[in-house]
Amino acid sequence: MSPLLTKRNQNYSKWYNEIVIKSGLAEYSGIRGFMIIKPYGYSLWDRLKTILDKMLKITGHQNVYFPLLIPKSIFSKEKKHIKIFSEGCAIVTHSRLIKNNRDGEKLIIDSKSELEEELVIRPTSESIIWNTYKRWIQSYRDLPILSNQWGNALRWEMRTRLFLRTTEFLWQEGHTAHSTKKEAIEEAIKILNIYTNFSEKFMAIPVLKGIKPFMDKFYGSDKTYCIEALMQDGKALQMGTSHFLGQNFSKAFNVKFTNFNGKREYVWGTSWGVSTRLIGGLIMSHSDDKGLILPPKIAPIQVVIIPICYKKNIVNVHETSIKILNILEKEGIRVKYDDRIILTPGWKFHEYEMKGIPIRINIGKNEIENEKVEIFRRDTYEKIYIPWIKLKNLIPKLLDEIQENIYKKALQRTQKLIIKLDHYNDFKHQINHSGGFIFSHWDGTKNTGKKIQEETEATIRCIPISNEKEEGKCIFSGKPSSQRVVFSKSY
Amino acid sequence: MSPLLTKRNQNYSKWYNEIVIKSGLAEYSGIRGFMIIKPYGYSLWDRLKTILDKMLKITGHQNVYFPLLIPKSIFSKEKKHIKIFSEGCAIVTHSRLIKNNRDGEKLIIDSKSELEEELVIRPTSESIIWNTYKRWIQSYRDLPILSNQWGNALRWEMRTRLFLRTTEFLWQEGHTAHSTKKEAIEEAIKILNIYTNFSEKFMAIPVLKGIKPFMDKFYGSDKTYCIEALMQDGKALQMGTSHFLGQNFSKAFNVKFTNFNGKREYVWGTSWGVSTRLIGGLIMSHSDDKGLILPPKIAPIQVVIIPICYKKNIVNVHETSIKILNILEKEGIRVKYDDRIILTPGWKFHEYEMKGIPIRINIGKNEIENEKVEIFRRDTYEKIYIPWIKLKNLIPKLLDEIQENIYKKALQRTQKLIIKLDHYNDFKHQINHSGGFIFSHWDGTKNTGKKIQEETEATIRCIPISNEKEEGKCIFSGKPSSQRVVFSKSY
Repeated sequence: MSPLLTKRNQNYSKWYNEIVIKSGLAEYSGIRGFMIIKPYGYSLWDRLKTILDKMLKITGHQNVYFPLLIPKSIFSKEKKHIKIFSEGCAIVTHSRLIKNNRDGEKLIIDSKSELEEELVIRPTSESIIWNTYKRWIQSYRDLPILSNQWGNALRWEMRTRLFLRTTEFLWQEGHTAHSTKKEAIEEAIKILNIYTNFSEKFMAIPVLKGIKPFMDKFYGSDKTYCIEALMQDGKALQMGTSHFLGQNFSKAFNVKFTNFNGKREYVWGTSWGVSTRLIGGLIMSHSDDKGLILPPKIAPIQVVIIPICYKKNIVNVHETSIKILNILEKEGIRVKYDDRIILTPGWKFHEYEMKGIPIRINIGKNEIENEKVEIFRRDTYEKIYIPWIKLKNLIPKLLDEIQENIYKKALQRTQKLIIKLDHYNDFKHQINHSGGFIFSHWDGTKNTGKKIQEETEATIRCIPISNEKEEGKCIFSGKPSSQRVVFSKSY
Repeated sequence: MSPLLTKRNQNYSKWYNEIVIKSGLAEYSGIRGFMIIKPYGYSLWDRLKTILDKMLKITGHQNVYFPLLIPKSIFSKEKKHIKIFSEGCAIVTHSRLIKNNRDGEKLIIDSKSELEEELVIRPTSESIIWNTYKRWIQSYRDLPILSNQWGNALRWEMRTRLFLRTTEFLWQEGHTAHSTKKEAIEEAIKILNIYTNFSEKFMAIPVLKGIKPFMDKFYGSDKTYCIEALMQDGKALQMGTSHFLGQNFSKAFNVKFTNFNGKREYVWGTSWGVSTRLIGGLIMSHSDDKGLILPPKIAPIQVVIIPICYKKNIVNVHETSIKILNILEKEGIRVKYDDRIILTPGWKFHEYEMKGIPIRINIGKNEIENEKVEIFRRDTYEKIYIPWIKLKNLIPKLLDEIQENIYKKALQRTQKLIIKLDHYNDFKHQINHSGGFIFSHWDGTKNTGKKIQEETEATIRCIPISNEKEEGKCIFSGKPSSQRVVFSKSY
């Protein structure tokens, strides 16, 4: 395999697959739709988990764990929710495989012992959780319940892509229960804001906050909030969703509580999640033709130190490197010293550029003589020389600067592609050539949405939360409309 | 449900189930064999995970994630390993459930779309991982590979008990690959030592390190190392296992590497794991008739502050509590201030005793007037009075003291039940009355092991690593034996 990547402007999709594999994030497992998350990819997911988990805990959410397998009868109770099956689920029907033969050692493969009831591998856990909330909730004193679960889930996908769409994915799914409609809606929006902060402040990905059009809301919800980000190829990626479930699940599972006045009422709910898909968004937002570019706040390794050794200076270089490693570690920086001797510095430069390490520090003869180090910034390819003595203060500042620069770059790129259009020809041209978030009028019908999608592949990504009312005409049907919605091709 | 627990000496098994449920650790899900881990139980698991993950990372292990579902053909490649099926696995045979009816909205449940190949929900991941190592390993330079995975796994259990034996469980499974037999054995023993430290230093549970007798080793391994702990009822609990896999998996999956001399060799392997079962061991080692007793190092909450309020002093009590909360938090102590006003102090005392919080601090009128606080130790039921000014220094010391005391108590209890026996009648009497780790001679045959089990329910837990050779006669058959092994009833 060539050490170089296909260029983005040659084949964006091929570039994406290559970067995932060559940077060591993940690979195909050989089992259709299932990927293997490699150590570097998992350490990135671990960083994302750690940060988001903290944000959720500070806002009062608690982690729980519910069963992987859900009986079909429970899964089917909410009559819209069961439509998730139509997207495909894995069904467990049998529980055993072998019997010992009379010979003792030989085994007969036998998969005949059918389960009494089929079990579904969770595509999402609303049903099993609301089936349990029935037991947990009696009075208003038991509310709110703010649960979150980190785990795996499975949806049988026909076309899969590493991180972006896999049959099994890792995610967090939040499931909350409230005594009032107002509180549940506030919770759904609070989570949307947490996701937004998480995406913008940590992943350096600017997002658009919005509401899904009625036909695309989550099965079993009253309203689906979402954050959408724009990738470098002008296509949108849904980064996370937060659903106001209304009383749909409490009614399906008969979950009532006694309110302040002693009256029995149905509970209000929300659910929300982000998944390993975020890593796909991260790659497609920032990376370039040389490899990943990771924002320092989520980079598993923020600084790598590379020794430039010749036989004569090997001891000095090693000692200096360790000294600098210690200085940076004391500042709480995630730093790695790569002292593998079988690889050349050039090979290592290439590797860490591919892996997107924000800062590389070279240490060799010149650096020791002048008591300066050469610093390489992954985001701008700049080289800077810093005296040793200033490293302690300058590196943390530089990491902040890189974080900000990566975000600003993504923001500028996104803003350039936020475009208001009123003519369908312009719309088609824009969608086909540069993509972007196209703000246009829509007549509010499912049919128009469907036709636009058939002709352009663009869908309504969301109705922005910050939308202002504006009279206009549907870009497709010419019928009256009171606000613009956001169209884009998407992943 | 009564707020009190069944006493241990009345019905140990009932006491166990009640303590799990009443302390809010977990509950049955209604789906046979599957439990729900509640917030308090999950926070405990999170603590265990965090500590062990750090120990594994310091020793060079990296986290990865492999597919939940394993094709039957891959699972079956190692011919002994496939026996795990005989313990029961969940089999995914179908991939979809519904079709839209022609009416549009109505749905027909349809589970007819059979998969081309049946998929097994992982009971353990050796097969899929070695199927992948084939691609990862070419040369000695690619070795060792030190992978670990945190996730869920499934084994179809007939009799299940909360935490101790559940169909789905959470665990870590390590899978390593090495260039020499010596290095692989060293790795398996290194892990055994990590598990031992983890258990003794953090969970305060003394363990016996040993090797499983040949007939009980892991299917597909050459040798299974284990740690065994003794519960309060004199039965043993296997806390963790570490397997030296030899070349069984590398041969089954044809994983070879080129050695220093350019020759192709099969890779050597290990695998090892601990699971949510540890929480069962924790409960049964330390807890008493009032509820859980948690060692401070793993307690999600180490100190709880309870205000003793009357209308007059409510402001003072609140202010003092917050002050003490801040002092302790600054020392890095996990502390909770329970200011719920609808519950009485007595109710809270009961609750936190049930939850096993190591230290309770009461703050009321007297405490404020005398600038002292009353401190209650969960492990000894002692009350101590400490001046506010000394809290900062004394609480961390007290937590260490509690940790040590809990371990010492468990150690003394265990040591009393480590018994050498040479007569089968004594053996049967001891097993039936007090249990314990019985060190006796065994003739080394599977048949003797089986007969002893049939007559006494005791099994050979392990051959202790620290064993000294000793000539003797098998306690059952009278045949010659060269060392004692450890018998016990077990969970």
